[in-house]
Amino acid sequence: MPTTTSALSVPSAGAPFEVVQLERRDLRDDDVRIDVAFAGICHSDIHTVRDEWGAAHYPIVTGHEIAGTVAAVGDAVTRYKVGDRVGVGCLVDSCTECEACKNGQEQFCTKPSVGTYNSKGYDGQWTDGGYSQQIVVTERMVLRIPDGIGLDEAAPLLCAGITTYSPLKRWGAGPGKKVAVVGVGGLGHMGVKIAAAMDADVTTLSRSMDKADDAVALGASRHIATSDAEAMKAARGSFDIIVNTVSADLDTEAYLRLLKPFGALVNVGLPTNPYSVRPFNLIGGNKVLTGSQIGGIAETQEMLDFCAEHGIAATVETLDASDPATIDAAYDKVVAGGVRYRYVIDTSTITPSA
Amino acid sequence: MPTTTSALSVPSAGAPFEVVQLERRDLRDDDVRIDVAFAGICHSDIHTVRDEWGAAHYPIVTGHEIAGTVAAVGDAVTRYKVGDRVGVGCLVDSCTECEACKNGQEQFCTKPSVGTYNSKGYDGQWTDGGYSQQIVVTERMVLRIPDGIGLDEAAPLLCAGITTYSPLKRWGAGPGKKVAVVGVGGLGHMGVKIAAAMDADVTTLSRSMDKADDAVALGASRHIATSDAEAMKAARGSFDIIVNTVSADLDTEAYLRLLKPFGALVNVGLPTNPYSVRPFNLIGGNKVLTGSQIGGIAETQEMLDFCAEHGIAATVETLDASDPATIDAAYDKVVAGGVRYRYVIDTSTITPSA
Repeated sequence: MPTTTSALSVPSAGAPFEVVQLERRDLRDDDVRIDVAFAGICHSDIHTVRDEWGAAHYPIVTGHEIAGTVAAVGDAVTRYKVGDRVGVGCLVDSCTECEACKNGQEQFCTKPSVGTYNSKGYDGQWTDGGYSQQIVVTERMVLRIPDGIGLDEAAPLLCAGITTYSPLKRWGAGPGKKVAVVGVGGLGHMGVKIAAAMDADVTTLSRSMDKADDAVALGASRHIATSDAEAMKAARGSFDIIVNTVSADLDTEAYLRLLKPFGALVNVGLPTNPYSVRPFNLIGGNKVLTGSQIGGIAETQEMLDFCAEHGIAATVETLDASDPATIDAAYDKVVAGGVRYRYVIDTSTITPSA
Repeated sequence: MPTTTSALSVPSAGAPFEVVQLERRDLRDDDVRIDVAFAGICHSDIHTVRDEWGAAHYPIVTGHEIAGTVAAVGDAVTRYKVGDRVGVGCLVDSCTECEACKNGQEQFCTKPSVGTYNSKGYDGQWTDGGYSQQIVVTERMVLRIPDGIGLDEAAPLLCAGITTYSPLKRWGAGPGKKVAVVGVGGLGHMGVKIAAAMDADVTTLSRSMDKADDAVALGASRHIATSDAEAMKAARGSFDIIVNTVSADLDTEAYLRLLKPFGALVNVGLPTNPYSVRPFNLIGGNKVLTGSQIGGIAETQEMLDFCAEHGIAATVETLDASDPATIDAAYDKVVAGGVRYRYVIDTSTITPSA
């Protein structure tokens, strides 16, 4: 028997949030029903709700930074039991059979994988995300949230955490390595914490010095204002890895110049326009221009365990959704860059209007 | 006392070759004088002689694929003795003190490094390359050519060999990996041989099927004509590494589509126009766009030893330079893509006109 749960939904592109009653599927043998405690607000949610990427399917319930506890499990579930602290990120299904899935890269499943919202499941049903009080997910896609991380500060790890952890690990952040994080926001603040926990020397970059003190408090050794031409010039050739969390168009070559030979510029945001790079600016120094998209399930668990081991998690502001307009206003504040550093919705406050 | 040696020189941009008497410096303590036996013709030589990259300093003696035997050594030389079979590649000096030099990446020396020709040495003298009967080089920049590799077929390894070996190694070519080599020319044919010797599965790509049989003979498993839209579509998502040896502008995104997730497109040629890449085409699949410029000295030695161990070397056509116009004609043939696969000049034939 399907269950009904309260959720925050938008009926059409750019419309305000409203509380709806959402039906979640009856438990299949391998399903876990989760009582959602907190759902983070990711910039992707905003792009989707506002249909800025196209192809949004309304009504839509966003949210792919989900933390809560297990409410019920299907008959064949072995990994989780009622009461376990768990999370769900950007993916709720994958084929398990393609090369990417076999390599633990479910995000690149060729079937393709099923997103947590705005995605058609293998059963033909559209998925709805975490801005709701319950969600049902196959146990393969459920993560365990280690003790010691609060559910509120854990939720953003499921997207912002893995999005920054994965490229930092791939490109070798660690002792003796110099890492730059461009943008000190939801993604960037996690990039700083994780890179610092990996014992890299971390520099943050953003347009001004406004967040310089915060960046140091998060774990950076220094902050550079990209508007300071002298400081940018002095930083040339100094980084092994640059993780760019900014989705606005940037001067790619200006950042490539900041890399040491063999360094990597990893974009995790999605600007609108193509990168334009003169060939010599890659060949001269064997430099790497690349991107990174979340991470696989096993790597996401590894990231959660890493964060617990190092005592880090997201820095959050909790939102009360009793008045859904609070979420609309929060979206505007995220777009304006005014959050330090991630909003999470307390889903217990999602209540049907009287 | 400086020595005088016969060399092929061009007096100005695009002028024909002429034989000149070139002065080589007296041996310093750490210098090795080499009797050059063969000098390969690299496309870079042609760009330089014709001043297509700008900044050529005339008169100019090109050649950075040099193989020969040691004729004399300075008092402090310890690694080489008269008669040793040796090579010189693209570099004849580096500072030894910067981070790149300390990391064995002399090609990225920040002083910067000194190129084998058309480069100003640390002594203020312009360098002249291998189209000559003798060259004097500090022993640090001299490579040992293993027994079992002929000096003629060894010469091109000093540029074409290391240029393809270095990215294949960096990006993990080996058993179970699928490697594509774009362009079956001087660089490409070495890319195929080396990748096959690394036990990767090798595919070659070029505009037509003209070189398909040759590619298989070199070690490829198959050849794809890039003009065949169906074949290109069928190859999507199939390569771990693509080494692009073509200097013409290519549709970068078309090649990125051929990569598996986490795959790397490595350009070793220098097209004129910027690469244009839409961000999603890197982020979707964590794909890498990069370049690679020759290799350091230790890695070049490693490549030579690898080639000897695997019984591979360049496939060469030997040129008699008694009539210097032969070299001019050879340049035209290189540009037209008609060489299979590398010209080497037999430097003993460089003789002053009567």
